[in-house]
Amino acid sequence: MKTQLQTLLGLELPIIQAPMAGVQGSELAIAVSAAGGLGSLPCAMLTADVMHQEMKTIEANTDKPYNVNFFCHKTPEVDEAREAKWRGLLTPYYQEFGIDASQITAGASRAPFNHELADVLESFRPTVVSFHFGLPEKALVNRVKSMGAKVLSSATTVKEAQWLEANGADIIVAQGVEAGGHRGIFLSEDTESVDGRAPKYSVSTQIGTFALLPQIVNTVSVPVVAAGGIADAPGIAAAINLGASGVQLGTTYLLCDEAKTSAPHRAALNSDHAAETTLTNLFSGRPARSMVNRIVSELGPMSDWVPDFPMASTATAPLRAKAEASGSGDFSPLWCGQNASGCKAIAAGELTRKLAAGLGSDSFI
Amino acid sequence: MKTQLQTLLGLELPIIQAPMAGVQGSELAIAVSAAGGLGSLPCAMLTADVMHQEMKTIEANTDKPYNVNFFCHKTPEVDEAREAKWRGLLTPYYQEFGIDASQITAGASRAPFNHELADVLESFRPTVVSFHFGLPEKALVNRVKSMGAKVLSSATTVKEAQWLEANGADIIVAQGVEAGGHRGIFLSEDTESVDGRAPKYSVSTQIGTFALLPQIVNTVSVPVVAAGGIADAPGIAAAINLGASGVQLGTTYLLCDEAKTSAPHRAALNSDHAAETTLTNLFSGRPARSMVNRIVSELGPMSDWVPDFPMASTATAPLRAKAEASGSGDFSPLWCGQNASGCKAIAAGELTRKLAAGLGSDSFI
Repeated sequence: MKTQLQTLLGLELPIIQAPMAGVQGSELAIAVSAAGGLGSLPCAMLTADVMHQEMKTIEANTDKPYNVNFFCHKTPEVDEAREAKWRGLLTPYYQEFGIDASQITAGASRAPFNHELADVLESFRPTVVSFHFGLPEKALVNRVKSMGAKVLSSATTVKEAQWLEANGADIIVAQGVEAGGHRGIFLSEDTESVDGRAPKYSVSTQIGTFALLPQIVNTVSVPVVAAGGIADAPGIAAAINLGASGVQLGTTYLLCDEAKTSAPHRAALNSDHAAETTLTNLFSGRPARSMVNRIVSELGPMSDWVPDFPMASTATAPLRAKAEASGSGDFSPLWCGQNASGCKAIAAGELTRKLAAGLGSDSFI
Repeated sequence: MKTQLQTLLGLELPIIQAPMAGVQGSELAIAVSAAGGLGSLPCAMLTADVMHQEMKTIEANTDKPYNVNFFCHKTPEVDEAREAKWRGLLTPYYQEFGIDASQITAGASRAPFNHELADVLESFRPTVVSFHFGLPEKALVNRVKSMGAKVLSSATTVKEAQWLEANGADIIVAQGVEAGGHRGIFLSEDTESVDGRAPKYSVSTQIGTFALLPQIVNTVSVPVVAAGGIADAPGIAAAINLGASGVQLGTTYLLCDEAKTSAPHRAALNSDHAAETTLTNLFSGRPARSMVNRIVSELGPMSDWVPDFPMASTATAPLRAKAEASGSGDFSPLWCGQNASGCKAIAAGELTRKLAAGLGSDSFI
């Protein structure tokens, strides 16, 4: 028996590969889609041209359902005072690495979904278009729907799930606090700066999958996908017991052959570091789950002085580049959820089929 | 088919009622044990005499298995400087309520397990003796075991679970971050004060049930009990899918007739407040999950200046008493996990039987 999600999307397996900007492109998406899951292309850090090329590659390599993912934040003005404080905190590191910080200009590292990107989408047939941080303006949601794509977004609270359903989401991801990468938070009272400090984004009240998932399932009528802490077939079965119509796995795919995960990131995933992750705003300005590395332990995990999302990574980029050049992830976002036990350095299609085979009979779905 | 936990304890149902100091006594424990679960008596805030009386009451009313629970912290010296800073933060509240703070002496609100309490245990036959914050010294663990009781303690990380197994625990609770009340943290690097500030207890890296439970199950060989975010039969089934041998539910019992939950606490559980909980050290000095109320939002959730556990509640006790006298929970610990959806204002035995009936056939256990 297929879940509501599988029926809606024509999906062989109830498995979505989480879009992970910066660590994967079309290659991972193709592998997962070809194996019967829903592969995802993260577009938040792509230009329109690269996105066009990546989508062409996907459609040339598979005719199975796939997902393209966008962020939908508002790009803020540069806060000069906070930027200066942030640079001040980074100065000892610039000195250590011999970096001339005066050459670094402030700017955004990620672009929100807009009409230019929607124009690119028109030439393709993605099954799902997904968003993080809520939904874009109504006109953009309508454009996506008119292309025949289903709209997916993530909720970190029951209220966010209700808002998403009321505003046109066809599928809702219940993103438990275990999940790696960016929290999808968008209705917090703490998304604005107060007294010139970085927003807190309600980090302290974020909810675990076990509690969040059934409460969202009981509130909305669209299919709900569980994300956060799921790493194997028993995890998928447990999520379905709690009412999920499918699962979204990110961390589990990070060691796959087709992922672009960096060498230091792969090494950290294979080490004890993977047992200690935290929500940190240091890498982008918004809370995201990363392993604890040097910059997180020395300046974080949450800093009052980090620039607003997505302006925070410009000033750290040269530090990250220098460190990575010598094999160190001390300044890199080491995205990782709270359960890295399912990571395998194999082909993503094989991993997807293993997850599905482990589900045993169809009886529980 | 019974789980390993049920077999070990001779338990009809794989359900443990979480010990909740301050909001319940023997009455709740008796009701749950009589219904086939494992009722628990929290002893952290009881004198030896009261504990003796409560255990007498339990054994007079049920011959089913039951659990007595203790904290096993070290009582610290008063840190005069921090105590003074803390009183300073509370001064506006003392003024608002007309409280003479000079009459309040610093002191501990909870006592650790010791030989005097072990003496009391000797006269009774608890099936389980459980501990929070690790285990007491070896001699005390041995005394408990020689009485024939099984030893249970909670782990918040895989490392803590390994330590507990190596040091004699017969059953381990995997306490996910969703759980209400005190985190069982005991192996964090942050359990000590640095620069005169309150310990941080690794709050930012605490792990959700969905991620913690299977990783502990895969590491230890004793039965593992899932705690945190479980509120109904599908939740119990999901936990068992993830390898749990049973579940521990606290929040779900808070509205039961036999619980001593205060009126403001009950009102909050029945309101939207239950959707917003956080880990806070304000009520005891250690992180514990409570609903967000006035003191948490104004001084917390984590304060650098709160006295060490368990010295923090003495100074707030008169504020709490004054507020509660007028029906307000502004200064009370409003313990609550991240899933209050299972709370029902019915008899605890009935609730336990409903949970068990909802499990359907025995097939999954």
